[in-house]
Amino acid sequence: MKVTIKDIAKEANLSVSAVSLVLNNRACRVSKENKELIKSIAKKYNYSANQIARSLVTKKTNTIGIILPDIENIYFSSLAKCLEENCRREGYALIITNSNDRYQDDLELVNMLTARGVDGLIIIVSNESYKDNKLMINTLNNLSTPYIMVDRTYQELSCDKVAFDNEEGSYIAVKHLLNNGHKKIGCVANTAFSNSGKARLSGYERAMKEYHGILRQDYIAEGDYRIDSGYKACEKLLKTDITAVFICNDMMSLGFLKKLYEVGKTVPDDYSLVSYDNTLAPYLIGIELTSVEQNVTRLGIQTFKLLLERINKIQETPKDILLMPQLILKNSVHSNGF
Amino acid sequence: MKVTIKDIAKEANLSVSAVSLVLNNRACRVSKENKELIKSIAKKYNYSANQIARSLVTKKTNTIGIILPDIENIYFSSLAKCLEENCRREGYALIITNSNDRYQDDLELVNMLTARGVDGLIIIVSNESYKDNKLMINTLNNLSTPYIMVDRTYQELSCDKVAFDNEEGSYIAVKHLLNNGHKKIGCVANTAFSNSGKARLSGYERAMKEYHGILRQDYIAEGDYRIDSGYKACEKLLKTDITAVFICNDMMSLGFLKKLYEVGKTVPDDYSLVSYDNTLAPYLIGIELTSVEQNVTRLGIQTFKLLLERINKIQETPKDILLMPQLILKNSVHSNGF
Repeated sequence: MKVTIKDIAKEANLSVSAVSLVLNNRACRVSKENKELIKSIAKKYNYSANQIARSLVTKKTNTIGIILPDIENIYFSSLAKCLEENCRREGYALIITNSNDRYQDDLELVNMLTARGVDGLIIIVSNESYKDNKLMINTLNNLSTPYIMVDRTYQELSCDKVAFDNEEGSYIAVKHLLNNGHKKIGCVANTAFSNSGKARLSGYERAMKEYHGILRQDYIAEGDYRIDSGYKACEKLLKTDITAVFICNDMMSLGFLKKLYEVGKTVPDDYSLVSYDNTLAPYLIGIELTSVEQNVTRLGIQTFKLLLERINKIQETPKDILLMPQLILKNSVHSNGF
Repeated sequence: MKVTIKDIAKEANLSVSAVSLVLNNRACRVSKENKELIKSIAKKYNYSANQIARSLVTKKTNTIGIILPDIENIYFSSLAKCLEENCRREGYALIITNSNDRYQDDLELVNMLTARGVDGLIIIVSNESYKDNKLMINTLNNLSTPYIMVDRTYQELSCDKVAFDNEEGSYIAVKHLLNNGHKKIGCVANTAFSNSGKARLSGYERAMKEYHGILRQDYIAEGDYRIDSGYKACEKLLKTDITAVFICNDMMSLGFLKKLYEVGKTVPDDYSLVSYDNTLAPYLIGIELTSVEQNVTRLGIQTFKLLLERINKIQETPKDILLMPQLILKNSVHSNGF
């Protein structure tokens, strides 16, 4: 049986309101002895306050909601883990939800979480939503709940945002290949399904122009961030004379490497390769990829800090924070022609 | 501005209670026309019911809590994804929390989630808790919230449980190696930190006895389910004359393969290998592992079904469901001596 505040009051021979005030750590005229008595009885019965009833009084639920596009993606589950730890430290519970990268689910989840009275909302929108995000922008504009857009943001919307600079990330990756003497550098991009993919192609193009790489349409293969598309992109790029390749995420790099293995080619002997995400180190055997890292802990800490400021109304003007990715050097790039 | 039920009542020129009844889909004497009017106004303002206030009336929060030991582990994040989809279909939100495999966090999270009034609780306890689980058993025995233990269960506790049969899983894995003519079969186990690990070693021993394998202490290496420990176990087993190895999880298999690669040995040419989890297929290049699969979708569906029955009080006696794992055959096992 669950012990109520009434049971504790009865056993302590004190009023219900005295017990309530003490257990909620509110100022009251209860003597030190009686306070200790109340707390010891509560402890004995493993009493925990009714969060629901408390929510109606404090207007706070001490809950934060997050919408993830894919909880199975290691990047997002790591972010959720980091945020959950930050939340817990500050007394918040994190409701983690999953949109499966569907726009309709984005909208439903925003409604569901705000209807539950979360104190704050962390939103990573679906890639699908970029096609037509009017309804979402309208929904977010009318939201009275504090919220923050993370990783995938809308330029059109004025709100708190934290994301990594995708253009800069691929720029430093491709610059590294160019600095190693490569001119004919392929790119496995994702411009059809992803905004980050578009930015990453821009970074590739900027570096190629600045450092006199050879920009050719047949050096660019389209993918969709999945393994299979990297495999197919490799089939296409094998027909060209590239000496190096920049691949816009790790999953496509895996597919690319699978195809290379099938035709007996290796990295870096036959091709230099730079990837994006830096998540494959534990899985690859006999090869380590130079890759662009978006440090997930930095993203999580920054996100939570900004949301907390918004919840506590510390800052009024929305902040748009752009974090810099880092190139992690491994042995997948060979010098060319020096 | 958030629209309240009062605003809708005013605009519709109807009573607040009529609007409340209609929007909560309760039986009432409101005309069909007025019902439609109320719903259209609610839709126009994107009105969503206040879940907190509703919770106090219905005594339900339509929330289910889950405690995961490690959300970054792909197995648990897949389970969370599957459960989240099942929950959402039935109108529940899933609060996902993470214990980091710490016993103290298990206890805190049970209290936190029940204090928030979840309608049901899904618990995957920490491995650490098996050392001394008295406090947890006591807490669960006194719980008025319906709950279910998943994947890792306590024998001592009478409650709803769903888990895979670890002993049987490793038994079929090792039997497969024996049926292919291997007698000297190593085992990378984890008996110090994991109950499932203990059961998997038992299955290995049962198969070895039944099919006349050679059981020797130096054929068994201890690990902790992490990559590094598989690497070290390989160093140890390389000194023996085994022709095959059964490895109790995929992460340790990765470490084992990394060491083999370093010394120029391959699977299955030099060693036959059977792993456990069947999660590595996307990541491995040039090798596919025969592995024991614990189908996570089956686990998720079964868990949700049983918890829902408990919440709805359909069944009174606790159920203890043991799911059978499956051996997925790939090309990592060679015939020996036929």
